[in-house]
Formats: sequence, structure tokens, C-alpha cells
Amino acid sequence: MKIALTVSYDGTHFCGWQRQKNGRSVQQTLEEAAEKFFSSPVKIAGSGRTDAGVHALAQVCHLEGETTVPPEKLRECLNGVLPPDVRVLKSAKVDGSFDCTRGAKRKTYRYTAYAAESELPLLERYAVRVKEPLCLEKMRACASLLEGEHDFKAFCAAGSSAKTSVRTVYAVTVEEKKSDGHTVYEITVCGNGFLYNMVRIMAGAIFSVGSGRRTEEDVLLALQTGERTHLDRTMPAKGLTMVSVEYEVDPFL
Amino acid sequence: MKIALTVSYDGTHFCGWQRQKNGRSVQQTLEEAAEKFFSSPVKIAGSGRTDAGVHALAQVCHLEGETTVPPEKLRECLNGVLPPDVRVLKSAKVDGSFDCTRGAKRKTYRYTAYAAESELPLLERYAVRVKEPLCLEKMRACASLLEGEHDFKAFCAAGSSAKTSVRTVYAVTVEEKKSDGHTVYEITVCGNGFLYNMVRIMAGAIFSVGSGRRTEEDVLLALQTGERTHLDRTMPAKGLTMVSVEYEVDPFL
Repeated sequence: MKIALTVSYDGTHFCGWQRQKNGRSVQQTLEEAAEKFFSSPVKIAGSGRTDAGVHALAQVCHLEGETTVPPEKLRECLNGVLPPDVRVLKSAKVDGSFDCTRGAKRKTYRYTAYAAESELPLLERYAVRVKEPLCLEKMRACASLLEGEHDFKAFCAAGSSAKTSVRTVYAVTVEEKKSDGHTVYEITVCGNGFLYNMVRIMAGAIFSVGSGRRTEEDVLLALQTGERTHLDRTMPAKGLTMVSVEYEVDPFL
Repeated sequence: MKIALTVSYDGTHFCGWQRQKNGRSVQQTLEEAAEKFFSSPVKIAGSGRTDAGVHALAQVCHLEGETTVPPEKLRECLNGVLPPDVRVLKSAKVDGSFDCTRGAKRKTYRYTAYAAESELPLLERYAVRVKEPLCLEKMRACASLLEGEHDFKAFCAAGSSAKTSVRTVYAVTVEEKKSDGHTVYEITVCGNGFLYNMVRIMAGAIFSVGSGRRTEEDVLLALQTGERTHLDRTMPAKGLTMVSVEYEVDPFL
């Protein structure tokens, strides 16, 4: 039986999604919880391999195995044994052809930052402080340059094994919100797939244009030449959250 | 020299504001950081003794001592040595008559809860999950009963040393917000002072009326009789945040 899960996690104390020899991964944590309810060890595939420290509101994954637990009850059973920083939000039996990785049509990520003179302990866990004043208009102009089908070679960390660096980004939006007197910036990126560290490098480009350290010209050059040198730093992992993964047919309907 | 500070902290790993023999308190953490910049050990007084696990956006405190650091620079100096879960947001020299505790005219606290079928790891740190569906109208009706000058004896945990249990609550508001598809409830309480656990018991009363487990009648009886038995549980500490403390004259202006 094939089962799809939607899981949410606080990435702070995980080495990332993917199982690693020396680290506490989300994948291993879920697989160990699942073992209690399946007749043999299960392997859980994720729709995106989030890095160490990256959070997820709704990561979609799938597994295959035999269990006496009704698929829709697996959510509660797994939550009963999982540590508090990861929870299953949905579980459902899916068609044998469902593949959470290859079937993903659209993925949405959000990068959160805030402006303040000191770090704010109540925002620091899921957001990153930006020190320079930011211009919303400039950030939005930069965001729109990144929309569309582009070769995102310059927006990819070294060591990526992707065959092509061409991706389609459907939308990049920048919102400025007030939270208890402080300004919070949310960059939401939706695309058909992302290269290694791509969203964090995109966010870095948008903030550097917003602060005036870089210009739209630099970002265009990065897109045209594929050279990383035209861009600023990769933003820290903790400000990044995987928001949603969409499929041709919603596996939970 | 007398100096006022506004501090923010994530209460998760603190035993509360007040120094304790066996525990990591905010007070002691701040005092140990201050010692590095003052000629002799300093005692820091807080405007409110938040409990273990309670957070603060802007707790006001004061200290007296001799330092070569200009008062307005003390913020940065202290932040340089403080652990990441506590930060000084403001520091200023104040008049010798300023007393952050006795001078506080209005205090504002916020209680945050959310409705979901499973715990949500990205909300759990600063909010509490409510399992029953809540009626906003009923919660607001209950909230308005608590406004005004009342004897809040029934809204006080055992062991309080307060001389009188009469307090004036200026406003109790309940907001329903959408956050990533989930419903978040924020109860904001503003008053001239609060008894031990009073805000958490008030929040518990509002949620129990909202869910139908209790009625407005129960809350009125609690106010009239002073009997705790008419009320539900004290809500957990982690959903509570001290939002602000106001004075006749803003010490930071």
C-alpha cells in the first residue's frame, strides 16, 4: 500500500530532510516512527530535501508498506510517537503511481526577515534580522526580474548535481508587514523546482537590491552570465520555510 | 546613576523573570551580563515577574550603579554578552525617582492559541493548541465581562501574596486571525496590574466559554463569589507574552 503524508517541522534541530550518518534528519525521524506501525522497515521519500535549519509548513512525502492501521489514522498514530518538532498533518492512501518527488508541479517557499536595531528573541527562530533599511519598491522590482523561465546557474550553490539549471519561477512576491511595531518582510517564491540553495540566494539578491548594496543591473547580469559573483550572500537557513507542494491531482482529496 | 532597560526574551528556557536558587532566570542572566560593565554587582528590578515559560516582547526594568558606558550604549554592550534568547531593546538614564515596578500604570499581555487537528510545530513555541471549535462571539462576550474594576480573587492561583485581589482591567480583546490556513486566536489584556496567573486563568475562562464547556453565567459567578471552581484550567505558560508596560512619563523619551 502506498501512503502520502503531509508533514510540518521546525528545522532548528534537524540536519535537514535527508538521512545522514551523523545527524538527526527529518527523514530518519519519520522512518523510525513509521517502523512501529509497519510490518517491515519503510523508506520515506520527500518532495524536497530541505537543508539543515530550514522549516516546513507542509512538506509532502510518500512511503510504501504493509500496516494494519487505516491510512487516514496513520496521522494520529505517528504523531503519538514523533518528537514535538515534527508532526504529520495529513495521511491518505494514494494510487501506486503517485510520486511525491517527480509528481510535484509547483513548490512554494517563503523567506522571512525583519528590520530592527537589536535581534528580537521572539522572531529570531524563524526569521533573519536585516541591518540596513530596505526599500520595498526596489525589492519588488528585483523580485519581478526573477520571475519566468531562466537559467538560474548563478543562483545555485556549488556542489549541485542537477542536470540543468533552467527553472521556471511562476511568482516572486515581497510583502511588508507590521508585527508588534517591527517591520517584517516576507518573500514568497513559487516555481516548478529549485536548485540547491536557490531560494536563499534569490532572497539574498532581493535584500541586497532593497538595501542598495546591489542593483537590478547586477541581478540581470547574474541571470545573463550565470556568474555568482554578481550576487550577495546566501541568506541563513532559519529564515526559510517550505510552504506547500502542489500536484496535478491533490493526493489528499 | 539609574538606568531603565526594555528587554525582550523567549521564555522557553527560563525559570521565569525572578532569580531562583536552581534555575536560569532572566533577572540573573541580565545581572550577570551587567556586572561586566559596572563597578560593583547590580540588582535589576523588573516591572513584572513573568513565570517560567512566559515570553516578553518589552519588559521594562531598572538598575542602579556606576559605569563608564554611556547609558544609551548599554543596550549594545549588554547584547554583546547576553545569550540569544534575551535582548535589550532600549537603555536610557532615568530620574532617580523612576521605579519600573511601582511606577507601572498599564500592563498589556497577550495570550495566543490556535485551532488545528494536530499540533503545529511552527506555532507550538509561542501558542497553545485548542482542540474544540471556538465561537468568537461567545469569547468576546466573556471578554467584556472581565473588563472594569473587579475582585479577581477567583482568577488568582493559590499562593499569591497580594494584599488585595481588586484590579482594574481596561480592555480585553479577542482577535481571530488566519495564519497559513490555520485559525489563530489572540486575547489581549490591558490592566493596572495582574494577580498571580490571572491572565492565564482569564484566557482559560474565555476559551472555555468559546468552546461551550462553560457559560458566561459561570464567569459572572466566579467574579461574584471569588470561587475558582466556576472556572476552567489555567492556560499553559508558553502561550503568554508580556507585550508592554506603560508609565506616566515614558522613561525612554
